Amino acid sequence: MMNQYCGTSRIAGCQFSLHPMSDQFVNIILSTLEEVDTSKVWMETDDISTCIRGKMVHVFDVVKAVFLHAAKTGEHVAMNGTFSIGCPGDSEADVYMDETDVPVNEEKMSEISQPAGCKFALYPMGTEDYMDKIYEQINLSNDRNVDVTSVHYATRLDGDVHDIFQALYESFDLVQQKVSHVTMTFSLSANSPTNR
Amino acid sequence: MMNQYCGTSRIAGCQFSLHPMSDQFVNIILSTLEEVDTSKVWMETDDISTCIRGKMVHVFDVVKAVFLHAAKTGEHVAMNGTFSIGCPGDSEADVYMDETDVPVNEEKMSEISQPAGCKFALYPMGTEDYMDKIYEQINLSNDRNVDVTSVHYATRLDGDVHDIFQALYESFDLVQQKVSHVTMTFSLSANSPTNR
Repeated sequence: MMNQYCGTSRIAGCQFSLHPMSDQFVNIILSTLEEVDTSKVWMETDDISTCIRGKMVHVFDVVKAVFLHAAKTGEHVAMNGTFSIGCPGDSEADVYMDETDVPVNEEKMSEISQPAGCKFALYPMGTEDYMDKIYEQINLSNDRNVDVTSVHYATRLDGDVHDIFQALYESFDLVQQKVSHVTMTFSLSANSPTNR
Repeated sequence: MMNQYCGTSRIAGCQFSLHPMSDQFVNIILSTLEEVDTSKVWMETDDISTCIRGKMVHVFDVVKAVFLHAAKTGEHVAMNGTFSIGCPGDSEADVYMDETDVPVNEEKMSEISQPAGCKFALYPMGTEDYMDKIYEQINLSNDRNVDVTSVHYATRLDGDVHDIFQALYESFDLVQQKVSHVTMTFSLSANSPTNR
């Protein structure tokens, strides 16, 4: 049954929404999108969220770039979304799977230093030992350059946005190598007036 | 392995964040929290999100009340979160399972009429036929008083907030009756300046 819907495509995707807590939210969103190179992913935006799809490396590159360029305005910015891989692919976005593996936004954003907090949760689908996959991954997080804490229903990461995304990418990548269909929710916050 | 972590508690929970796109976001969040009765759920808030836990009926009641009272300000408000049931419960929040089933916010918010858009995705965990559970549920959505459309990685609901939450509740409830551990992500938006 699973194959009927999922195929074997390893196209990744992310459905996310960016929330600048500011009267200038429209300008912040528009100027952010101008700074981010989205040429290597399929993209569709509506009034609720933006969906991008393509190679995993580019999906993470674009999501990180959107968050970083919005956060560097100094406004309190939040971003929520779900990464997904393994189901389903289609011909419309599959053309983006021919792109090279070089992330196009990395150079421009590498100089932006931005602390943030992130809660994420991994959902390996269609496997009965999913809790093992999750716990295995959470243990690995401790080796990374971020503070890792366990919270209800999620894992919390604190650190620089580059390190947070590195941990997110590696966690997602580790699980997707073992499980066909994986989703990962995340909730990012920067420049919050509330101290942790 | 699953039982080791999950137990048999049917405590539900929701990790959510509220995002008023306004310079007044702090005031909107604080005044919203004043209007919502959270006495029947365990609650913890930090700089990223709020986690509530208790009986399913009260978890949905509080989440809907938070969104409605924030949206009635007329500001563009977004809310993102993940409902979860089946894993894990603990003694700290389990005391809230003794509450009666009467939702405490329903009467006060029943008069608020608020259109919104919502994308949601259901994740039945630990089962190999999870796609069947999802598709079964999506078909049922068509009978409800909301517009239902299929989008990448999610299902979109448009309508009044009360009807959207009714559909979310019923979808979640249907799947959790068949699958022990279920999560459901949602992304709500009201008063967006972007037309659909």
